[in-house]
Amino acid sequence: MTRWAPGARERLQAAALDLFVEQGYDETTVSQIAARAGVTDRTFFRHFADKRESLFAGSDRLVDLFTGAVERSTAHDPLDLASEALAASAEFFPPERLAWSRTRTAVVLANPALAEREQLKMVTIAQALARSLRERGVPEPAATLLGRSTVTVFQVAFDRWISEGEDRPVLDLLQDTLSQLRTTLAPSA
Amino acid sequence: MTRWAPGARERLQAAALDLFVEQGYDETTVSQIAARAGVTDRTFFRHFADKRESLFAGSDRLVDLFTGAVERSTAHDPLDLASEALAASAEFFPPERLAWSRTRTAVVLANPALAEREQLKMVTIAQALARSLRERGVPEPAATLLGRSTVTVFQVAFDRWISEGEDRPVLDLLQDTLSQLRTTLAPSA
Repeated sequence: MTRWAPGARERLQAAALDLFVEQGYDETTVSQIAARAGVTDRTFFRHFADKRESLFAGSDRLVDLFTGAVERSTAHDPLDLASEALAASAEFFPPERLAWSRTRTAVVLANPALAEREQLKMVTIAQALARSLRERGVPEPAATLLGRSTVTVFQVAFDRWISEGEDRPVLDLLQDTLSQLRTTLAPSA
Repeated sequence: MTRWAPGARERLQAAALDLFVEQGYDETTVSQIAARAGVTDRTFFRHFADKRESLFAGSDRLVDLFTGAVERSTAHDPLDLASEALAASAEFFPPERLAWSRTRTAVVLANPALAEREQLKMVTIAQALARSLRERGVPEPAATLLGRSTVTVFQVAFDRWISEGEDRPVLDLLQDTLSQLRTTLAPSA
């Protein structure tokens, strides 16, 4: 049900998530995860440092999608750079990943330590984005403001994407959320 | 040097900060802090649960300044509500607090666990602000976007305030930073 891709790594992530839902995060051991995925403990540890990492292992790729888009973009307007970074992040969340993302978020929010880790991951992305924007010539404080705002848009769009009753693809929601942020902060007519 | 107000509570906070700078956060004990402030350990624990709280004890008042301003405001425009919340937060950072805030930030940034706590404090403020904005009739996702953006502006303005060579009061920097965020996100002319 929460499987969205093949391969040992993905099977381990799906097995971990299933077990976290079935019996709780704290109660689940690495050995149980490995057994459920049909691999040895050693195989688990080749992919992840610990059970927590099975939930967070994708972060580095997500950071790379955001910053890589800024680095490779031919745009000059800072807002266009941010917009391209958001569009690139959508690649991480294809429709077939929705069920997994929904369940993962429920598990993370149910555990305060995991929820904190998730928030800190977002801070890391904002800082990495600000760095990339500075390297593309965006001055401070605009680079930091835009790095954080991009992550704000991402977080709100992601929450919309996984909410029940929402069926638009994440790319549409990212664009719509950016547009709503701009409207909210625009001068009153 | 880092003392900015009288009273046992403030003396304990100043003593703690001085010791964290002199000998390191991890190396400092509650007994050393109490002795430096000229009070007993018991007095320390009447004010703070542990040494970490001597650095974070003001958070609740800061949250109240932000949310209280939104709750009491007569404004209806969401952006005006956010702007009033920012203005209210300036009360927490009078000029005589600058040296203390600078030193506190250096101590917090030097310790990864404290830096994480600081970031999570900001997430808490953003969530509280979004709640207050919703109670004032701001719909979602605007309330969440604006709550987070207000905190983004606050964080950037605060970092500007404590930076060397900056001599504007925090209120000016909050207003200027909000204005810069709006310009950064405004449609290109």
